[in-house]
Amino acid sequence: MSQRGRFISLEGGEGAGKSTLFGSLRDYFQQRGVQLLQVREPGGTPLGEAIRSLVLDPAHAAISAESELLLMFASRAQLVREHIRPALEAGQWVLCDRYVDASYAYQGGGRGQPIERIAELERWACDGVMPDLTLLLDLPVSTGRARAAGRGVADRIETEADAFFERVRRVYRDRAQAEPQRFRVIDASLPADQVLQAAIAATAHLFEAS
Amino acid sequence: MSQRGRFISLEGGEGAGKSTLFGSLRDYFQQRGVQLLQVREPGGTPLGEAIRSLVLDPAHAAISAESELLLMFASRAQLVREHIRPALEAGQWVLCDRYVDASYAYQGGGRGQPIERIAELERWACDGVMPDLTLLLDLPVSTGRARAAGRGVADRIETEADAFFERVRRVYRDRAQAEPQRFRVIDASLPADQVLQAAIAATAHLFEAS
Ligand SMILES: Nc1ncnc2c1ncn2[C@@H]1O[C@H](COP(=O)(O)OP(=O)(O)OP(=O)(O)O)[C@@H](O)[C@H]1O
Ligand SMILES: Nc1ncnc2c1ncn2[C@@H]1O[C@H](COP(=O)(O)OP(=O)(O)OP(=O)(O)O)[C@@H](O)[C@H]1O
Ligand SMILES: [Mg+2]
Ligand SMILES: [Mg+2]
Repeated sequence: MSQRGRFISLEGGEGAGKSTLFGSLRDYFQQRGVQLLQVREPGGTPLGEAIRSLVLDPAHAAISAESELLLMFASRAQLVREHIRPALEAGQWVLCDRYVDASYAYQGGGRGQPIERIAELERWACDGVMPDLTLLLDLPVSTGRARAAGRGVADRIETEADAFFERVRRVYRDRAQAEPQRFRVIDASLPADQVLQAAIAATAHLFEAS
Repeated sequence: MSQRGRFISLEGGEGAGKSTLFGSLRDYFQQRGVQLLQVREPGGTPLGEAIRSLVLDPAHAAISAESELLLMFASRAQLVREHIRPALEAGQWVLCDRYVDASYAYQGGGRGQPIERIAELERWACDGVMPDLTLLLDLPVSTGRARAAGRGVADRIETEADAFFERVRRVYRDRAQAEPQRFRVIDASLPADQVLQAAIAATAHLFEAS
């Protein structure tokens, strides 16, 4: 049987440069001849993209923290079963713009949903599929927000206060510290090409046979 | 402070007559001068109605059982917080076309999601809000399906096989037996006016001061 693929997730606050890195890392992998599935969260499936429109729509200002958490996992459960697991089993690599750590950071840190609640959802909704490598793009909140502001209209989550994003950053950093094997923290205040070089270096060990 | 309102949910398989009873029971309560909030599941809020369109759309045939369960609770968590709890606290009565028992019956019995998983979601998503009375409209599957067929195009769940709906019925009946204080089982094969009379009789005790 062919070797299982590798699963890489990109995490970080608003404007940290995840989508920018996503694009350049994709090009790098394709140059190396890696068969790559590219997905984003929430989204990545017809159901997930519909959920994404719901949760990011500023018109749904009243969405409860509980509903938001459930919707994020509904999107994720679908993405894992429809795309991520089948791709990994077929030997493809998977690059995902946000994954389960984002729920700990945003719905947990940001919105105050209990960590045990999120861990329990992870247990059955993710079906045991965890990234081999998570690249955390770490950046002061103000820098990230200033970058993101350049993109125009804010979505429902981007309209939160700085304190919300400080809690998001804290949870991301704590998780990276707790799981040093899986996480690599990248200084996202560096120029984009240096962020890419750091990311490429962090993926080197994935090319070794497992 | 005013007395808390009463919460009544209607449950049963496809075509059992829930929506029919909903309409006539609403008229009855309004004649008695009861301030009534009328809601349905999934739905009842802007978010919930959007979720309803997603989960019932036959185009989303690939929705995983896990995502379906999460979506049903996302709709419910929102409905409880946005409408049901505030109404009950303001002394209004609430009539709901399906509530949490439907997840045990459909996502549990029908789709095989573990009961503990559903109970755990109930624990935090429903925020402790349970019906004072649940009217279970019980009916042989074939009778209900024949009735529902008269309505035209089937939604995503209505396209399931009979065995699915037999499991749904079994779970509903088991739950009614396990919680006789909350449930009243009504023979839904009776003519609609007799179903209504049975339902009215079952609500009599709710008018006594608590
Ligand atoms: N290393 C960098 N240095 C300076 N600017 C950057 C860098 N990386 C990305 N940017 C710019 O910052 C803005 C936000 O980047 P990007 O959209 O990649 O962030 P993101 O993490 O995907 O944000 P979001 O969380 O909102 O999706 C863009 O205008 C992008 O061009
Ligand atoms: N007691 C009854 N006897 C005979 N027919 C009935 C009775 N109650 C309802 N019906 C008819 O059966 C059909 C289904 O009824 P209804 O839509 O109320 O069921 P339902 O339980 O709401 O179904 P669903 O689960 O699909 O929402 C309708 O055509 C309705 O007129
Ligand atoms: Mg992005
Ligand atoms: Mg109905």
